[in-house]
Amino acid sequence: MNINLEQKFTKFSEHWHPYIVGELNENYVKLAKLKGELVWHSHEHEDELFIVLSGTLIMDFRDKTVVTKQGEILIVPKGVEHRPRTNGEEVQIILIEPKSTKHTGNITVEQTVKELEWI
Amino acid sequence: MNINLEQKFTKFSEHWHPYIVGELNENYVKLAKLKGELVWHSHEHEDELFIVLSGTLIMDFRDKTVVTKQGEILIVPKGVEHRPRTNGEEVQIILIEPKSTKHTGNITVEQTVKELEWI
Repeated sequence: MNINLEQKFTKFSEHWHPYIVGELNENYVKLAKLKGELVWHSHEHEDELFIVLSGTLIMDFRDKTVVTKQGEILIVPKGVEHRPRTNGEEVQIILIEPKSTKHTGNITVEQTVKELEWI
Repeated sequence: MNINLEQKFTKFSEHWHPYIVGELNENYVKLAKLKGELVWHSHEHEDELFIVLSGTLIMDFRDKTVVTKQGEILIVPKGVEHRPRTNGEEVQIILIEPKSTKHTGNITVEQTVKELEWI
C-alpha cells in the first residue's frame, strides 16, 4: 500500500492520460503527465483535486485563469467548466476524483481516455 | 481555489493536529505536521490517504511496519489498525479522508483533535 510516485511516473510517457495508482473511499488516486492543452469540459457531479508535483499547471476558467505551481494544489468544483494547459514544459500531477469521473466530462475528443488502467 | 502548501504550513506548528485546506466530494484535504507517535487506532468506514511532503512517516500495522518517505504516498484501508510515528524528525503530510473521519477513530487521547479548523 506504499506507492512511490517517481517510480510510477517512469511507467508511462503519454500526456493527458491518467493512470490509477490507488483507491480511496470511492475515489481514484491517479497520476498524469500534461503538456499542451486539453479540451474545455466540466464534471457535473465531481470535484477534482490537482496536486502539482512538477511544472506549472495553467487552468482556464470562463472568468479567469489560475496558475498552479509545484507545491500547490487546485480544486476544481463540480460543474465548473475548465481547460487545463501548460506553458510548454511537462507538468506532473496527482489527480484525485470519484471513480465515476469521466476524463473529459461529456465531451469526447481524440485525447479522451475511456478505459482507465492501473499502473 | 489555488492553495500554496508551503504558505499553509507556516500557519501552524503543533504536531498531530490536522488543519483543513480544502474539500473534495465529501472528503477534506488536510495538512499536518507529525513528530513522535500517535495512539493505535482505526477508522471503521474510512480509507485514509497520506502524501508525504517531507520527512519519513513510519506506520505500524499489527502485522508489519511501512516506511513512507518524501514523494511517496500511503493508503490505510478502512478498518485496519495503525499507529503513525516518526523517526524523530518532523514529517509534513497531506491527508485526505472523508469528512466523517474521527482523528483517532473511536479512541480518545490527549492528542485527539475534536473540532477541525480551516486554515
